Amino acid sequence: MKHKKVKIGQAQVDYFFDSNLTSLSRITDKKSTILVTDEHLVTAHPQKFSSWKTIVLKPGEKYKTQATVDDIVSQLIGLEADRNTTLVGVGGGVVTDLTGYLASVYMRGIRFGFVPTSILALVDASIGGKNGVDVGVFKNIVGTIRQPSFLLHDHRLLASLPEMEWINGFAEIIKHACIRDAAMFRELEDHSIPFFQRNKKALADLIRRNTLLKTKVVQLDEFEKNERRLLNFGHTLGHALENQYNLTHGQAVAIGMVFASRMSEKITGFRQAERVGRLIENYQLPTAISYDRDKVFEVLKMDKKRARKEMNYVLLQKIGKGVVHSLPLDYLRSQL
Amino acid sequence: MKHKKVKIGQAQVDYFFDSNLTSLSRITDKKSTILVTDEHLVTAHPQKFSSWKTIVLKPGEKYKTQATVDDIVSQLIGLEADRNTTLVGVGGGVVTDLTGYLASVYMRGIRFGFVPTSILALVDASIGGKNGVDVGVFKNIVGTIRQPSFLLHDHRLLASLPEMEWINGFAEIIKHACIRDAAMFRELEDHSIPFFQRNKKALADLIRRNTLLKTKVVQLDEFEKNERRLLNFGHTLGHALENQYNLTHGQAVAIGMVFASRMSEKITGFRQAERVGRLIENYQLPTAISYDRDKVFEVLKMDKKRARKEMNYVLLQKIGKGVVHSLPLDYLRSQL
Repeated sequence: MKHKKVKIGQAQVDYFFDSNLTSLSRITDKKSTILVTDEHLVTAHPQKFSSWKTIVLKPGEKYKTQATVDDIVSQLIGLEADRNTTLVGVGGGVVTDLTGYLASVYMRGIRFGFVPTSILALVDASIGGKNGVDVGVFKNIVGTIRQPSFLLHDHRLLASLPEMEWINGFAEIIKHACIRDAAMFRELEDHSIPFFQRNKKALADLIRRNTLLKTKVVQLDEFEKNERRLLNFGHTLGHALENQYNLTHGQAVAIGMVFASRMSEKITGFRQAERVGRLIENYQLPTAISYDRDKVFEVLKMDKKRARKEMNYVLLQKIGKGVVHSLPLDYLRSQL
Repeated sequence: MKHKKVKIGQAQVDYFFDSNLTSLSRITDKKSTILVTDEHLVTAHPQKFSSWKTIVLKPGEKYKTQATVDDIVSQLIGLEADRNTTLVGVGGGVVTDLTGYLASVYMRGIRFGFVPTSILALVDASIGGKNGVDVGVFKNIVGTIRQPSFLLHDHRLLASLPEMEWINGFAEIIKHACIRDAAMFRELEDHSIPFFQRNKKALADLIRRNTLLKTKVVQLDEFEKNERRLLNFGHTLGHALENQYNLTHGQAVAIGMVFASRMSEKITGFRQAERVGRLIENYQLPTAISYDRDKVFEVLKMDKKRARKEMNYVLLQKIGKGVVHSLPLDYLRSQL
């Protein structure tokens, strides 16, 4: 178990890399801790949960709603959770987003930590304190920013991860490479998902590298005034497509990254949109779908990054270097 | 208009005492501001709202729920509210609690301010950043602590305040006197609600004194680790009674203060429970009701101030001096 202490804003976060869920009891007191997970994980690893108080959710983004939060609040009251209770989200991005949100508002805030169990949650969703729920097609429109007390990685839990979820997670890894790490972009070009599935050491290195990359960005700008906005690369169009066209988050972001790369060619002089598209295809992600431009624009314009009639849009200057441009909504519509 | 800048934690809050709702447009840009209020206020003062984008809620504590939050979120999306939008809660404690909560979670937090229009909201609910909603009989069990950007007082709006709400608000004023201001306690003994209704200068002084008293307590301890806990005087039993027995917040807190005063006689040697009871009666508030001990204890033990098997209970040492004692739950049950 490799332990690293990280400071994000006012918060101290303990990272436990290459660890084991069985070590969790050394980090948080079993008597006052409640795990939040989903049916897939409990079915795949029943013995890991048997000695903990556990709230089990139905799996899937469609349950990332206020109704689920209400239901968990009732369960927490039933379990007599108080201000000394710690919640631990064990699962993918839906579980970590919900658990973080819940812990931020239950009794006006209780301690929480994460055991991310998908590639996406490991390299992205569990890091940086953003949490939230969806309202209709509007993704994460309600939420807070609050840092977890700890992250614990147990790569054994990836054994039960469906193939689609591997692909999903690599979209965020490609995003990180595009905006901040040209060397990692080249490394990804040299490999593939099967390579990382076979090679545990390479996978552990990649997860650690992405965790630290995102952590660095969040440390520079916890409340997303500057640098952190880069992490939205591919997400503005991505979020608008995701729930309307029944895409996974990774698929939607991949299409959003290709769109933003093409727009970058017109605006920043970026010249490698094709190379971005090729890497995305190599990781089994889509580069385009046909969609209803008006319907997508109606959702896109409500993106949290809008400021009145302009949208802060993340573009690429070169591979490894993201930039934010303020684009008029009308222009954006014309590009869809 | 008397302007005072106050620092609470990291936040800067502008207080505008003795002001006028018509001055609001000097504090916040009309184009990017949305008012949140209730049907009573719009009916009583229609001309005050006509030039603002306004979301109108059904009045009453029973609407202080997540369902109302969801409904307002949908309306905000309809109004294209973005991260540059300011929400202003114009109303009593229910409106300010809901608006503060909403502004804390919508798009992970937008700017907000309050125009409190009841005695309770003026002297208590609008100050200190606590917000939240109820889940079933559990009051404010979901919420955050986040400071408003400004408070604006317009005493003209009290003209439409029902008599019951005057009584309701004085419960919190008596609470402030009990825990921190013996001189104000004596002043309250010398007067009555009709006196303050007739005497606008005395009322304005009283509101300002209570606003600053609560502000001072919150400045000392924004996140309720020490001093701020005193503000819960009367509220532990009060919250457990309020929704179960259909009492107003003030009535429930009054009964809670009498209960805590009597317990103080046994624990701290306090000797003026009778005097507290008399003042409460003089302000037309109840000192006791009959209730089902088991039902009340079931809710009381889930109070946010519980720590495992103990409850941090606010008692009085003398009038003007509150203290927190950790009491075993079993003992508390025996005292009900």
